[in-house]
Amino acid sequence: MSVRDAVDPWEALRGLPMGQRIELSDGRGGVFVGSVVPRHELSGERILILKLESGYNVGVRIGAEASYRLLEPTPTPERRAEPRSPAEGGPHAAGRWITLLATGGTIASRIDYETGGVRPVREEREILAFYPDLGKSGRVRIVPVFDRLSEDFVPADWATLAEKVVDAFRDGAEGIVIPHGTDTLGFTAAALSFLVRDLPGPVVLVGAQRSPDRPSSDGSSNLAAAAAVARDRRIGEVVVVMHAGLSDTRFAIHRGTWVRKMHSSRRDAFESRNGPVLGEVENGEVHLSGPVRSAAAGPARAELPLDDRAGLLWFYPGLDPHRAEEFVRPLRGVILAGTGLGHVALRHLGWIRAATVRGILVGMTTQCLAGDSDPYVYATGRDLLRAGVLYLGDLLPETAYAKLVWALGRSNDPAEVTRLMREDQVGESPGRHPARGEPA
Amino acid sequence: MSVRDAVDPWEALRGLPMGQRIELSDGRGGVFVGSVVPRHELSGERILILKLESGYNVGVRIGAEASYRLLEPTPTPERRAEPRSPAEGGPHAAGRWITLLATGGTIASRIDYETGGVRPVREEREILAFYPDLGKSGRVRIVPVFDRLSEDFVPADWATLAEKVVDAFRDGAEGIVIPHGTDTLGFTAAALSFLVRDLPGPVVLVGAQRSPDRPSSDGSSNLAAAAAVARDRRIGEVVVVMHAGLSDTRFAIHRGTWVRKMHSSRRDAFESRNGPVLGEVENGEVHLSGPVRSAAAGPARAELPLDDRAGLLWFYPGLDPHRAEEFVRPLRGVILAGTGLGHVALRHLGWIRAATVRGILVGMTTQCLAGDSDPYVYATGRDLLRAGVLYLGDLLPETAYAKLVWALGRSNDPAEVTRLMREDQVGESPGRHPARGEPA
Repeated sequence: MSVRDAVDPWEALRGLPMGQRIELSDGRGGVFVGSVVPRHELSGERILILKLESGYNVGVRIGAEASYRLLEPTPTPERRAEPRSPAEGGPHAAGRWITLLATGGTIASRIDYETGGVRPVREEREILAFYPDLGKSGRVRIVPVFDRLSEDFVPADWATLAEKVVDAFRDGAEGIVIPHGTDTLGFTAAALSFLVRDLPGPVVLVGAQRSPDRPSSDGSSNLAAAAAVARDRRIGEVVVVMHAGLSDTRFAIHRGTWVRKMHSSRRDAFESRNGPVLGEVENGEVHLSGPVRSAAAGPARAELPLDDRAGLLWFYPGLDPHRAEEFVRPLRGVILAGTGLGHVALRHLGWIRAATVRGILVGMTTQCLAGDSDPYVYATGRDLLRAGVLYLGDLLPETAYAKLVWALGRSNDPAEVTRLMREDQVGESPGRHPARGEPA
Repeated sequence: MSVRDAVDPWEALRGLPMGQRIELSDGRGGVFVGSVVPRHELSGERILILKLESGYNVGVRIGAEASYRLLEPTPTPERRAEPRSPAEGGPHAAGRWITLLATGGTIASRIDYETGGVRPVREEREILAFYPDLGKSGRVRIVPVFDRLSEDFVPADWATLAEKVVDAFRDGAEGIVIPHGTDTLGFTAAALSFLVRDLPGPVVLVGAQRSPDRPSSDGSSNLAAAAAVARDRRIGEVVVVMHAGLSDTRFAIHRGTWVRKMHSSRRDAFESRNGPVLGEVENGEVHLSGPVRSAAAGPARAELPLDDRAGLLWFYPGLDPHRAEEFVRPLRGVILAGTGLGHVALRHLGWIRAATVRGILVGMTTQCLAGDSDPYVYATGRDLLRAGVLYLGDLLPETAYAKLVWALGRSNDPAEVTRLMREDQVGESPGRHPARGEPA
């Protein structure tokens, strides 16, 4: 049935049931085949959102010249694999589920076609409307936790998420997926790595660099890959799953403490900076290659409370020592992102020494974001060491900050906090790098 | 003549003239052929420093079992190429020189073998002793400017260097080489890009990731490559020359505003983050491939004074808005390194709006260190834009800060400073990236 409404085509199109497959011509050369996605109060007038066969969504402006025809629903291929035994590293046993802790972010956002910007979706049914494939490979429970963009997260939110992870495992989930804004996804992944221990299954953070109703959205494919990883019983750590390279079907599995967002818009923006990727997902299959931490017997437990009297300060030429001192004064600890092997100007030695004497932890990382920080190569490093600075090897500044928020919550004794910071806790510092600045 | 001293071999070895070639056996299996390098008051007792045939230096501890024999000097091959015409892009005309502005840093440092640390060398004769090949391909003038490690640089030092560059060109140099500590080399390269204009030749910053008296030093080869670039009359901008990849003979030429140190210890630590490398040096030949700015007629001029009432603040989850406000209060401008496309938590909107109303420039960059910052994709970006934040595209945070230090020095009028920051000045923002967060 081809329809050219004598009246406004928008009047007919807006009334189509959700999920109806259509072929839509916008009358300006664009032809789209897909299913109608529910509209929102914020969608622009005369914008129809279609989920294309590719999984991408597109918003089409419906002018007077638009036409469409109704299509039959697509038959869904049944691709349910025979469950393998958990001992064989099979993806999942029948009857278990993964729990999705929804937090907001691009992966759960949509374009507001009136302003051109992106806003978070707030309800479970919206998430399922955008990701109808999510439940196909096994049971999924959805627990809305937050509905915000990740730049608004604070450490207290990491504590809330840690508790929800423990709850979900206690309730029987075999793995957890946390869709999360990509802006601070690396921070949260690092924080959860320290805050939740004895994981009986994977905790998988996943984001999208494009919102789900945009033609190029990566949310659907990322989420499917994350769900596959969350069902993998070989994994007992916090990981991040995002696109690898430019392939549409390859996804990298990053250790939560090694990963960093290294591009503002590319789909493959996330990189493991100081260690290998743990594995990949290709065409739905999980291939592990790195030093993966095995699942623990459980039960998972949260190491709380955390203490957010921590700071992260990036050094630069011209940073005023008085400003730095003021910045650090109310804190129990600060991570410095120093230059090179972990240096700051020597005129900062005074406040640093005074701070460490007061029991404030001053941890050193490198703003190079790769390679070790090392106090033994240059005179500056030895001076800083003598001033009480704790060198943190190749920890990313962000990971070191997340670790500090955890460690400060464990003890009020500066010596104990230092000991916790120095130790490898969850594979974040397995000592792969030479202690001295030897040729790389 | 093989010598086994009946008395302590150290007594004979310490008296050898500088430059004497010897074959040295340390009596513990090590045999070294090289020239004696001058000792320093800080060299450990019983440590002889040899420049090996490879160009690397090594410190050998002289025990009672050491022996040596004297060798003839190595004949120096004369590899002086026929000068090509400048119009053909030839490397240099006869009779001109390059000026080396020595600033300190690893490239002009040596190991203190007693402490195992590295200290800067302070005198021209030490630099020439370490880099005897420097003058072979043309005349070199050496002007010591500083003798410090680069983490101790402040913006006022950038002004001093800018003036020295102008002086050197005025005195007739065809190009400038600035050996510089690698820690803040990227900052200085960006700052000089804005501070010195109408360059009649190249200004080449170069560093070393290993001190010149260590076996794996890259200083000698980096400096030779930098000298070759400094003699290339096709180039009229500030560049950084450092090792490219793992090759011993390939060096990358980076635009000063695009380069960043991305590893704390690798020789190839420097990367052009948001643009192509401008070219390479291979076996002493300069190959240009990128969008190189041509040499100007000159004379070079310094745009001074600068104004260091600028700051650089990296956002993180948990950054206290009051701390950020205090940090910014005494400044005329601040560069924020935001998350993703250039975001900070919305609870920071208050102080940001108050600051911009007071005429403080608040510039936004991305801590991803690649890709654009862009206020039009998310609601957060539009809120920040309305609060008066200036989005700076894909400028590195460090480059944006250096540009701000320059721009604040040009005008006391906030609108004029904003205009200067928005404009492409020296090829730092040629608008290669899409303005919107489109698929990459």
